[in-house]
Amino acid sequence: MQKFIGCDLGGTNLRAAVVDVDAGTVIFQQSVPTLARQGHDAVMKRMADLIEHTIHRAGFSKKEIQGIGIGVPGVLDLEKGETTFLPNLYGNWRQVPLRDTIQLQTDLPTSLLNDARAITVGEWKYGAGKDFDTIAVFTLGTGVGGGLVVDGKLHLGFGGSAGELGHMTINFDGPRCGCGNYGCLETYASGPAIASLGIKAVVQGLTTQIGELCQYDLNRITPALIAQAAREGDPIAQDIYKQAGYYLGIAAAILCASVSPKRIIVTGGVANAGELLLEPMRKTMRERVFIMPVERVEIVLGQLGDNAGVIGSASWAALNINSPK
Amino acid sequence: MQKFIGCDLGGTNLRAAVVDVDAGTVIFQQSVPTLARQGHDAVMKRMADLIEHTIHRAGFSKKEIQGIGIGVPGVLDLEKGETTFLPNLYGNWRQVPLRDTIQLQTDLPTSLLNDARAITVGEWKYGAGKDFDTIAVFTLGTGVGGGLVVDGKLHLGFGGSAGELGHMTINFDGPRCGCGNYGCLETYASGPAIASLGIKAVVQGLTTQIGELCQYDLNRITPALIAQAAREGDPIAQDIYKQAGYYLGIAAAILCASVSPKRIIVTGGVANAGELLLEPMRKTMRERVFIMPVERVEIVLGQLGDNAGVIGSASWAALNINSPK
Repeated sequence: MQKFIGCDLGGTNLRAAVVDVDAGTVIFQQSVPTLARQGHDAVMKRMADLIEHTIHRAGFSKKEIQGIGIGVPGVLDLEKGETTFLPNLYGNWRQVPLRDTIQLQTDLPTSLLNDARAITVGEWKYGAGKDFDTIAVFTLGTGVGGGLVVDGKLHLGFGGSAGELGHMTINFDGPRCGCGNYGCLETYASGPAIASLGIKAVVQGLTTQIGELCQYDLNRITPALIAQAAREGDPIAQDIYKQAGYYLGIAAAILCASVSPKRIIVTGGVANAGELLLEPMRKTMRERVFIMPVERVEIVLGQLGDNAGVIGSASWAALNINSPK
Repeated sequence: MQKFIGCDLGGTNLRAAVVDVDAGTVIFQQSVPTLARQGHDAVMKRMADLIEHTIHRAGFSKKEIQGIGIGVPGVLDLEKGETTFLPNLYGNWRQVPLRDTIQLQTDLPTSLLNDARAITVGEWKYGAGKDFDTIAVFTLGTGVGGGLVVDGKLHLGFGGSAGELGHMTINFDGPRCGCGNYGCLETYASGPAIASLGIKAVVQGLTTQIGELCQYDLNRITPALIAQAAREGDPIAQDIYKQAGYYLGIAAAILCASVSPKRIIVTGGVANAGELLLEPMRKTMRERVFIMPVERVEIVLGQLGDNAGVIGSASWAALNINSPK
């Protein structure tokens, strides 16, 4: 049994898991607050300590662990092992030598990967993408991330920056995106985008169960609450997911015409809405693609849930450390 | 010197070339009218005869030729060697066994490939894409085709249908496309799309040199004529190319976020407009991409001109016949 640490550097929490990379399962995991405001040195120190502690608590010695994979929310320079741009993490993370710092502090070979690409690797190796050579993954959360596996290989592009499917321009006249562009998929299908449509409906005074469910406290409106209203038959809430699904379907249609994935996997917190989101996504994709056999492209939910990231990071480390390039 | 036949099945002409696939050069080529109205059997017979005749006229014996590659305008089933859907060719080309028919009639191993993918292979192996592991090619003509090379391999998808970059949805509210979808890139950047903007300007009575150049005969308005007017300083004509370049830039930005190509190659008749088209394309792409190092993505013209297709088809045949999968 090959054991690697899968780590997740999140805006709120740091997470470390001992992963059996043969089976693709989490043996033991822990998390601590990121406390990003203390700066990157403190965060990296906390991460190294968490890793050591997790190995120990899991009942292993460091010699039994073959390496560390870290999923990072942003743009990386994979060759240098540095962070380039982490928009969702407090402070200046430009050119922070994350890989070498963790490697030095833990004395274990370490690999970095964008967090959505880590989820992609997880789902591809052990989840909904197993046995498919070409897949696209959408991770729907605070932002919309993604990843591409093409012809049996995680497609990296410049420094691992390929597969940013949330930042495909879906509407060139669309709203401003956090990235600086306009009309990115993220502006339509992220958790905040969906929540804001629910908030708008309540503020506008529309007759919708969303209002009752949140007890007219706008702060309580989340994608999960809107999904609940939709499941209870509220048409406004159903329309919100139909709309998000429509834009995801446009993105899927664009991918069919270009990358031609055999499976499209949708995961992340917002994907808990399930068919509320996937059904309009599928419908839109099928209505919009004529130049390839779109009926053969499946859209499915991820299978590893919240563990996809740490399993994927660990598995990526195993791929890299066993056959480095 | 390895010699293969590169063949092009066009709506108007059939073309066959003896190609030196080591150098990527055309040794000799000929063409004859397709006469598609005579039906697919007659077209295939004419193609086989053209191939035999071309080999003979080039001064070779059939034993000196190692195989045939055919570029086909449409959707194929590469495994079966059949045509699936050829929208621009007269008659019913559903499930026509093109590969085996030509192979039988010529007694030479034969490979099929979509014509835009053949151009992609040509430019990748010998032209503007040489030495790049990940490229995107746009072929701008009567339609807009494309191709993707990802991590050093032509990306095929289902039966060679990947890389249909002209049918990416650029505007979900856009005009109807010939493929059945709405707002495909092709509706904005094909030859007819560009010509129709010139026609509209003249019909509207705008003050533009396009009118004088075509002597107010709308039938004479072509992308080339509009490019001439633009080069002579006509602002209306310049705007037409700016607009087409803008939409190409949106498509390029979408590719940067997803496939992250290292080079984007623009070719085909419409690309003769050169910087009139490429400059706004580059500008739009650079303004719209923030999540990867877009400054490293080059947009350049193809280098093999009109020969890219036959060179690419021949080279594809060489790849397949030397290492079949």
